[in-house]
Amino acid sequence: MTTTTTDLDTLSVNTIRGLCMDAVQRAESGHPGTPMGIAPVAYTLWQRFLRFDPADPIWPNRDRFVLSEGHASALLWSLLHLTGVRAVDPDYEVLGRASVTLDDLKTFRQLGSRCPGHPEYRWTSGVETTTGPLGQGVATSVGMAIAGRWLAARYNKDGLPLFDFDVYALAGDGDMMEGIASEAASLAGHQRLSNLCWIYDSNRTTIEGHTDLAFTEDVAERFLAYGWNVTTVADANDLGAVERALHSFQAEDERPTLVVVHSHIGYGSPVEDTAKAHGEPLGADSVRETKRFLGMPDDVDFFIPDGVYDWFARGIGARGGAARTDWRSMFEAYRAQYPELADEIERMQRRELPDGWQQALPTFPADAKGIATRDSSGRVLNALAQAVPWLLGGAADLAPSTKTHLTFPGAGDFQADDRSGRNFHFGVREHAAAAITNGMALTKLRPYWSGFLIFSDYARAAIRLSALMEIPTLHIFSHDSIGVGEDGPTHQPVEQLASLRAMPGLLVFRPADANEVVETWRVVAGLRREPAALVLSRQPLPTLDRNRLAAASGVAMGGYVLADAPTGEPDVILLATGSEVALALAARDDLTADGIAARVVSMPCWELFDRQPRQYRDQVLPPAVRARVAIEQASTLGWERYVGDAGAIVGMHTFGASAPLKHLLTKFGFVPERVAQVAREQVAANR
Amino acid sequence: MTTTTTDLDTLSVNTIRGLCMDAVQRAESGHPGTPMGIAPVAYTLWQRFLRFDPADPIWPNRDRFVLSEGHASALLWSLLHLTGVRAVDPDYEVLGRASVTLDDLKTFRQLGSRCPGHPEYRWTSGVETTTGPLGQGVATSVGMAIAGRWLAARYNKDGLPLFDFDVYALAGDGDMMEGIASEAASLAGHQRLSNLCWIYDSNRTTIEGHTDLAFTEDVAERFLAYGWNVTTVADANDLGAVERALHSFQAEDERPTLVVVHSHIGYGSPVEDTAKAHGEPLGADSVRETKRFLGMPDDVDFFIPDGVYDWFARGIGARGGAARTDWRSMFEAYRAQYPELADEIERMQRRELPDGWQQALPTFPADAKGIATRDSSGRVLNALAQAVPWLLGGAADLAPSTKTHLTFPGAGDFQADDRSGRNFHFGVREHAAAAITNGMALTKLRPYWSGFLIFSDYARAAIRLSALMEIPTLHIFSHDSIGVGEDGPTHQPVEQLASLRAMPGLLVFRPADANEVVETWRVVAGLRREPAALVLSRQPLPTLDRNRLAAASGVAMGGYVLADAPTGEPDVILLATGSEVALALAARDDLTADGIAARVVSMPCWELFDRQPRQYRDQVLPPAVRARVAIEQASTLGWERYVGDAGAIVGMHTFGASAPLKHLLTKFGFVPERVAQVAREQVAANR
Repeated sequence: MTTTTTDLDTLSVNTIRGLCMDAVQRAESGHPGTPMGIAPVAYTLWQRFLRFDPADPIWPNRDRFVLSEGHASALLWSLLHLTGVRAVDPDYEVLGRASVTLDDLKTFRQLGSRCPGHPEYRWTSGVETTTGPLGQGVATSVGMAIAGRWLAARYNKDGLPLFDFDVYALAGDGDMMEGIASEAASLAGHQRLSNLCWIYDSNRTTIEGHTDLAFTEDVAERFLAYGWNVTTVADANDLGAVERALHSFQAEDERPTLVVVHSHIGYGSPVEDTAKAHGEPLGADSVRETKRFLGMPDDVDFFIPDGVYDWFARGIGARGGAARTDWRSMFEAYRAQYPELADEIERMQRRELPDGWQQALPTFPADAKGIATRDSSGRVLNALAQAVPWLLGGAADLAPSTKTHLTFPGAGDFQADDRSGRNFHFGVREHAAAAITNGMALTKLRPYWSGFLIFSDYARAAIRLSALMEIPTLHIFSHDSIGVGEDGPTHQPVEQLASLRAMPGLLVFRPADANEVVETWRVVAGLRREPAALVLSRQPLPTLDRNRLAAASGVAMGGYVLADAPTGEPDVILLATGSEVALALAARDDLTADGIAARVVSMPCWELFDRQPRQYRDQVLPPAVRARVAIEQASTLGWERYVGDAGAIVGMHTFGASAPLKHLLTKFGFVPERVAQVAREQVAANR
Repeated sequence: MTTTTTDLDTLSVNTIRGLCMDAVQRAESGHPGTPMGIAPVAYTLWQRFLRFDPADPIWPNRDRFVLSEGHASALLWSLLHLTGVRAVDPDYEVLGRASVTLDDLKTFRQLGSRCPGHPEYRWTSGVETTTGPLGQGVATSVGMAIAGRWLAARYNKDGLPLFDFDVYALAGDGDMMEGIASEAASLAGHQRLSNLCWIYDSNRTTIEGHTDLAFTEDVAERFLAYGWNVTTVADANDLGAVERALHSFQAEDERPTLVVVHSHIGYGSPVEDTAKAHGEPLGADSVRETKRFLGMPDDVDFFIPDGVYDWFARGIGARGGAARTDWRSMFEAYRAQYPELADEIERMQRRELPDGWQQALPTFPADAKGIATRDSSGRVLNALAQAVPWLLGGAADLAPSTKTHLTFPGAGDFQADDRSGRNFHFGVREHAAAAITNGMALTKLRPYWSGFLIFSDYARAAIRLSALMEIPTLHIFSHDSIGVGEDGPTHQPVEQLASLRAMPGLLVFRPADANEVVETWRVVAGLRREPAALVLSRQPLPTLDRNRLAAASGVAMGGYVLADAPTGEPDVILLATGSEVALALAARDDLTADGIAARVVSMPCWELFDRQPRQYRDQVLPPAVRARVAIEQASTLGWERYVGDAGAIVGMHTFGASAPLKHLLTKFGFVPERVAQVAREQVAANR
């Protein structure tokens, strides 16, 4: 069962070690120790197991490799180079050029190099997910494994097993300590994801020193408690033992597998097994000494011995190429039998939706009583999900509250005994939920997760990664303000809107009524490279009468004139989002009665508004009208951008309180009279 | 060993259940099921174990009780009422009035009631920490247990064991799923905190339904893997079994204890064991039916049978009172022998510092090369910690990078074999680190934790709780911008500053040089009710020449004129924080050479600046000077507040990149020429 270790195995492993040392040394910064310790394991996995074709690194059924200990990026860059992985363009076309050239390796961590400090998705092909913030990679890998199971359930047919890929994640001690990893591991065990293998690079060394300082739990026992298969490799350099462990993963069909590998950080160097090997170059002398220890020439940088490229080509290259070619043939046979399903798969890969998906979107009649935007969103989602079979997701134990449950026939629950379900139960694990959803999005599904807006704080690092990776993960948050009411300040978001708006690349929507919800979904469903946050109310909001007011399609511009001053020449502009739009309209009525012409601007998405041409923005917010009032049940931070020097903001300056909403609205001043009063003061001050 | 269960035991438990049902029913919202299920356990703990004196709920050596499943607040309110806990004023004086009156219970979840939806620290005495966001309570309890051990090591003397309190936390299924709880449990096991007891209320029911949907791990086995003592109570209603489990905790002196209690959510009600019992009133009919089942009168609300108050007074009241009285006597004996240590304890309780602590603060001579603010902060911290013995903390495995290690003789590491150490190794567990630090602050230590600014995202929910609770936790963040350099965008904060500034009640400092660091520490060390975030550079920053520039004491005002226009009448104002202040000064030199008079304003703390009187703010930022440029290597969100309509912001609009800092500065435009150019455009546009 185990291949005999050859000279070329050893030579390849040491080539990787040499490249990593040299890349860090030339960069004068980086992390040499981890690659040197775990290189034999990564080598064995890639060369003998990974079904990955360097010539087509986005082949849909490829095995996924996630470098969760992302600081060891030099290891991945070396593998991408040595195996000859091809570059891919932003429209998913495989290019002739290499993903990572030797020059890229030589410019590791320099501006513009394809070899940045940590693996970055899209920037370097062969990177399956951006990693570095510890715990994110392993949690994301769970989403990939889930996606694999779901794709298999939907698309595999007798004799045509289109999707059976495995997901590997290489993790360090830091990953194992992070809470997000615990959450994800618990869920992976529950879901019995036997297509998932985490390799725990246990070098017992972190930045502060030996893990005995802070981390003395029994990791293997913990994972057994989660329901995982656990196996151990006593010595990372024992390629046979590594192979046996990976075979045990492949033979396991009930549980995810944790392979605990005891390794030596900075293997072979003078600082082996010390924290000094972690995050700084070894120094030229130590590099030479280490190369001598490894039997490599000590006077050549970036040395790649004869035969090594070819060895990889004959290993992973040949195996991956054959697997991909076979798969392409299978896919053609599949297309002949199941053209519609084949079309789905191809659209999904290009991040396109089924034709006519927009026809599924409902509209809502005007209704003064109205419904909560979480409810209208739930209805839109249910309609849309029937038109887009790979739109799917779940909640962090809050689906009855966030209304993200898919209720139509056949939607079902995704569980170990039914992989076709489209409702996911993430448990009370917001951080893992977001990262897992990222993993599903990276596998080209259109996934969402949901929770209360206050709990976006728990998931923030994973939300950030969706923005950094430019993937269309949908983050759905209900209970968006003091509208939470009686649960009080611990559950009432105040600063979360500003926090999300501060994040580059994330579209944050806070729709004002059911039809703005529809238009929000129209925008977000079509996103291919941007994540979005939907921020929804707990409490009912009136469905605005669009015969009397502007159409909700203005959502696509981020902000629009909802109700203009009768003359089109407003004395004052009221800007609001979400639940405060109806409040602005009520204040406008008060002002009209006083002879003050007020315009109401709905601003559901700042980011989209800021992208509009100046002409449009000036039309919505004419510079000459300096009397402005922004109204939002949230931190005022950032509203100055729209209300300007002279304007006022009715917002939250403290945390909320526990009380029925109507009392909170009075306490915090979100009542028409106050808004109208502030507007009057604005008009007077800006006359 | 086990007390015989009496009628009054049963009656007391059912009284609690009745109060909880009634409170939720009257509020027409809330969580009845959890209190009903776990009431016997909370009752037994309070009545027979907790060394807590209702007459002095802030007695320093009291056992702590943390209701981590904070949605069950009615349970705590009932206990605080029945045991007669006294109110405490903000200056830590115990008052004559009750913390929770029957009227408070009857106004549960109403505006102004002492019984809000979730336990809120300071608002209701007897609440040891604000809970509700799941996982926070248990993690915070670890900090309390750590504080207990540290206090004992520093202050206990032979025959005078001043500190030997225990810490109990009551947690639900949701707590057990949260990553922060895993992090905290792993660290508690490592630290062998045998004074810590988590009671896991395992009712197997969450909002989406049975825990089988998402949570099927073996929790007991997981905690054994962490190194905990684990014991199980098969039936929450078996008071004898509960007592035996709590005795087993008390007998354990090596490990923290997890008591797994199998309970029934909504016990005795028609919705027992269902998710319907979780988050909504039972309904009047069901309440009556349940009361009949419990043998309570079904036609009386908020019924407290004769003898129950007295029963509690004879149980927890008598035991706690005696313990407190004995402790006070012991403390007087202690004061006689160790007056200085006794003084420390008393200052600490009032959140005061030793006299003359400010004399410990260094000053830094001007130095063009300068040092990183993380380094100067480390030096100030080390000086200050020698003057303030209870200033202590650690890092989430980054102390060598964040420079928070205390290096003076005797500082030592806090570990199971040395509880006097003042350096804490939190491991790669940012979220737990922040919550544990909160727990230490709640125990009146002056603690800090540190990490990279990017990882503040991981800890955000705990940082928020420090702000909501108004406790002076210090959050120290280094690597504050693209100054991180080669590690790239995953490690370069962009939106974190804005996110922290959006949080009510948190003071965010980004000092510009070593002397601003000193002044920052002068402010934050003296805080009694506010948490602060220190945001520090990785790279060296020049130590500014304060003979030529304004004194750094301006930090106390949040923002100050660092370098004025020669005439005092600036053509343009340059505003900056941290590393960009030196850049603003360089641009000012450029502008001066061009005959443009520029003022440089250092704005290390927006929150403090916003609190200054308008006169001061207008003096620093004269309204007539509309030509303004803000410079900060961060999201621009919020700077409009200071630069106004006409101003410009040189900031980050995207994520960063992996490269040496000097290249990033050019790429992203943080160079004097560009700042000067933007300033010139400002002057031209605002002429």
